[in-house]
Amino acid sequence: MDVKTQNIELTCKPDEMHDITGQVERFLKEIGAREGCVVIFAIGSTCGITTIEYEPGLSRDFPDMLDRIAPPGHYHHDATWGDGNGHSHLRSSLVGTSFIAPVLDGKLLNGTWQQIIFCSFDVRSRQRKVVLQFLGETTG
Amino acid sequence: MDVKTQNIELTCKPDEMHDITGQVERFLKEIGAREGCVVIFAIGSTCGITTIEYEPGLSRDFPDMLDRIAPPGHYHHDATWGDGNGHSHLRSSLVGTSFIAPVLDGKLLNGTWQQIIFCSFDVRSRQRKVVLQFLGETTG
Amino acid sequence: MDVKTQNIELTCKPDEMHDITGQVERFLKEIGAREGCVVIFAIGSTCGITTIEYEPGLSRDFPDMLDRIAPPGHYHHDATWGDGNGHSHLRSSLVGTSFIAPVLDGKLLNGTWQQIIFCSFDVRSRQRKVVLQFLGETTG
Repeated sequence: MDVKTQNIELTCKPDEMHDITGQVERFLKEIGAREGCVVIFAIGSTCGITTIEYEPGLSRDFPDMLDRIAPPGHYHHDATWGDGNGHSHLRSSLVGTSFIAPVLDGKLLNGTWQQIIFCSFDVRSRQRKVVLQFLGETTG
Repeated sequence: MDVKTQNIELTCKPDEMHDITGQVERFLKEIGAREGCVVIFAIGSTCGITTIEYEPGLSRDFPDMLDRIAPPGHYHHDATWGDGNGHSHLRSSLVGTSFIAPVLDGKLLNGTWQQIIFCSFDVRSRQRKVVLQFLGETTG
Repeated sequence: MDVKTQNIELTCKPDEMHDITGQVERFLKEIGAREGCVVIFAIGSTCGITTIEYEPGLSRDFPDMLDRIAPPGHYHHDATWGDGNGHSHLRSSLVGTSFIAPVLDGKLLNGTWQQIIFCSFDVRSRQRKVVLQFLGETTG
């Protein structure tokens, strides 16, 4: 059993969604992952990690749904900090900033139409860091 | 430290919830799990894993709440794919497809009224796969 | 690779949010954690674990949002059990009762404004248990 940790960086526009499945797969290949799990952790409090069928329709529907649940507006957070991103924080707490996926024979076990996405919910462009951490057996 | 991975299969009706706690416990017993954690991963993008007090009232209340957050309707996804399950995808991304639970002395540490459930949010019956993966110490 | 499991206890008022980041850090220090991940698991079905920028504004905004999604009211659960906390259960299933965070050089890799919180969604005061479990390399 082994543990390997690596950061990836993402350049994100406001309210943007990134399919990071390929980057997770690349990490698993680089470290020679065999059987275990990969933790995917978004650093920050205005972002999230989840899975989706990554296609143009849902890439609009998911933010639309979040607009109904946590619309941009007047939050106590904004009254104090004046950064106008109260709703971004709420979406982060709701969607969650951490995800774990199992790996077998070096492959992620996600479905064909189930991509791992990083969501930047913030109102401004941000440079983001995501931690990838594998725990399990490696060829190394 | 050891890692063990197994799939379970579920036959799910539209918008159905399954208590899989017993199946997770059976898996832990079979592999001789002692101390560690079990990853429970739903393969697919119209399903989810979470915990609930599994009783008939909440089994209606939880889908009712999701009906308000992500009602069946006209989504960009449906316009493209015509499968009428845009809301199923949104519920999956919101609830999440992955869960992790700690194990000690071979037992899941969930509460008495806290069951692990698989939710099939899709509009049609589906055969589902759930990955169970234990990481930790085993008697084997 | 090693696994270490510990419980912490929290005294929670109705609908209260606790920043448990410091307690997680203390646990990691005590066990000599180096590289790995920590599972944070809330025992119960009316509570949740997530991350937030823990400041007074968002501490009001997050419950306010949940009040809109899952307002206190008349649920099937309450009709059966009469405990008036149907909405507490729904919030738990939605937010989730489990969280995982990566650790490197003995430190949690969360952001500066990203605290780990335990949410007690119940309508009455409760004594709560949270399981902390580290998997990875320790100095011990």
